Amino acid sequence: MNTVYFDHNSTTALNPAVLDAMLPWLQGQHGNATSRHVFGRLGREAVETARKQVATSVGVQASQIVFTSGGTEANNFALKGITANLAASQVLVSAIEHPCVSRAAAALAWHDWQISTLEVNAQGVLDMADATAQLQAQKTGLISVMLANNETGAIQPIAELAALAKAHKALVHTDAVQALGKISLDFTALGVHAMTISSHKIGGPIGIGALVLDKRVDIAPLLHGGGQERGLRSGTENVAGIVGFAKACQLAVETVATRSEYLSGLRDQLETGLRALGVSVFAQQAQRLPNTSFFAVANIDGETLVIALDKAGYAVASGSACSSDSTEPSHVLLAMGVEADLARGAVRVSLGEHNTAAQIAGFLAALKQEVQRLKGLHAVAA
Amino acid sequence: MNTVYFDHNSTTALNPAVLDAMLPWLQGQHGNATSRHVFGRLGREAVETARKQVATSVGVQASQIVFTSGGTEANNFALKGITANLAASQVLVSAIEHPCVSRAAAALAWHDWQISTLEVNAQGVLDMADATAQLQAQKTGLISVMLANNETGAIQPIAELAALAKAHKALVHTDAVQALGKISLDFTALGVHAMTISSHKIGGPIGIGALVLDKRVDIAPLLHGGGQERGLRSGTENVAGIVGFAKACQLAVETVATRSEYLSGLRDQLETGLRALGVSVFAQQAQRLPNTSFFAVANIDGETLVIALDKAGYAVASGSACSSDSTEPSHVLLAMGVEADLARGAVRVSLGEHNTAAQIAGFLAALKQEVQRLKGLHAVAA
Repeated sequence: MNTVYFDHNSTTALNPAVLDAMLPWLQGQHGNATSRHVFGRLGREAVETARKQVATSVGVQASQIVFTSGGTEANNFALKGITANLAASQVLVSAIEHPCVSRAAAALAWHDWQISTLEVNAQGVLDMADATAQLQAQKTGLISVMLANNETGAIQPIAELAALAKAHKALVHTDAVQALGKISLDFTALGVHAMTISSHKIGGPIGIGALVLDKRVDIAPLLHGGGQERGLRSGTENVAGIVGFAKACQLAVETVATRSEYLSGLRDQLETGLRALGVSVFAQQAQRLPNTSFFAVANIDGETLVIALDKAGYAVASGSACSSDSTEPSHVLLAMGVEADLARGAVRVSLGEHNTAAQIAGFLAALKQEVQRLKGLHAVAA
Repeated sequence: MNTVYFDHNSTTALNPAVLDAMLPWLQGQHGNATSRHVFGRLGREAVETARKQVATSVGVQASQIVFTSGGTEANNFALKGITANLAASQVLVSAIEHPCVSRAAAALAWHDWQISTLEVNAQGVLDMADATAQLQAQKTGLISVMLANNETGAIQPIAELAALAKAHKALVHTDAVQALGKISLDFTALGVHAMTISSHKIGGPIGIGALVLDKRVDIAPLLHGGGQERGLRSGTENVAGIVGFAKACQLAVETVATRSEYLSGLRDQLETGLRALGVSVFAQQAQRLPNTSFFAVANIDGETLVIALDKAGYAVASGSACSSDSTEPSHVLLAMGVEADLARGAVRVSLGEHNTAAQIAGFLAALKQEVQRLKGLHAVAA
């Protein structure tokens, strides 16, 4: 396909080296990793080797990794599983969480938890004064704030939040799905109790992820059954997926510094061009992921622009891919105080390591042309 | 590997034709199936085509399929999701369910449901008189009974149970993971409200399955988030897994009659040989899956025999693979009234379409030799 892919925060291509690692587990006879015969034992060894690799890539021990079917399951598991073993109190989630955190939190209301929202500032960064006030005002069992936002790329002060939470005896979960492989990531340094990571955002297969747990966290399973993952996540181990995830983690972490530098160079090229077009970039003053630009062209609908750019050969997003079926303006931008009209114009470019400076230049030219065309249509219609 | 694989109820080899169907989705750039650009639209088309294929293979419409990460998730989703939208009453599960049903049911006690057990007879088949009595005695919201047991292969009278349940306004879920591809399967003919199927038991990839739903069932999601699967199961669609599952369903259903005939021939050869060795086969009088033999050699530990047979080149199970980490005797055999001592000797052979008569003959010879050796050791030790 000739279309340029600029939507890496939604999903990434499976790295050929990852597929090579997976293929032996997709060919020939293999056993259920729980079985005791030789086929099962080989599967078990592969899973446990992969567990060590994933653990190393985020600075923890193998026993702290619970494999899940992906980020959504890991986030649901964290919120529902941790609160299941606590007396109901307040759960705090930021206003800019992915729906798999915010809606999982909302579901806790059935279990007598009060769900409260942590505000962000105009740059899309957690308002620590608000967090402090809310922790002081009410007993809080769990806080969930993402490490980097999927739409703006804004990095959140998780270590600072964890230190604050500790003083209030609240547990902290962070969704690090967008952070892994884009910035350096160390579970212990963050000081959190649980952290979600996912494979398909870093060149690994879809359908696998993990919840990283502090050893002291008492968490209830979301999926009951055969007792896999030390009883915390039942279900036949997806050996090929786990092996692929581990390989993707290794590759992502090994090359994070050079990739980050390369991506931020491309991103700066993009944003220089956007400014020249008079386009406003959101969260520009925040510390951000190196690959993400979220912007809006005034008076042009984001959905319309995404479709026009797709036709012009550039695949970008109008917001979180997972809510692309919705025409509501981005909840992230609304939380930042952006006017709904401007928020409806939002377009996200999220770069990957195979993108090039020539693609950025081509995109800026296409954007300029499409904006002029759409403004012309708009003028005729008006 | 030279070891003969006789553990197909635990997991099956990925069918090369299934891998061929998956590979295009594991190579090159693809989009998140929720994205609106061309990469996303192609993923969406593949998912919806696969959904129709899976639906057709079990006799339902595409809108009745909810993809999950596998059988364990589908069973948890059924039990927890259906009861979440009902006033708490009694849930009935059979004594021979897989732990991902029985433990998911047990977890409902947290939500004020009373969990009761449906008994089976000495052949491992549901006792309909007990089911009738329990339905008459107490208001029942949901019944979950598997279509075919994973250990004995005994097929359960699900259509009869569904008719009985209807008279008592109870909903019925059936775990059909072991039945799919081994016997003909028609959701509508069964008359149930929800049915679990899984990919890796039929030559498809691990990590994907589905819950088949009657359109009138009101079910709450287990995984909240981006709203995929009509809001019933959030999480980025595992396109390669879904495409592979659909291909495996097609192949499994197309050839079920011939495969079933071939497998039952091998199974009869095996059981004739077992009887000649004086070995008792469980549930032999029941209507069973064509590929499954569950048997025990008196005074020989099943685990020990499995390990000895593994060394001799035959991979078999000592019970459900998912509980192979446990040394408790099979709950299925105990429910059938088998003495714990004999139950501890249980060994399961579950055949696949690539197994041969020569392998059965070799297995019977190896079994005879290992039993003699182990009895000799036992005599010396005694």
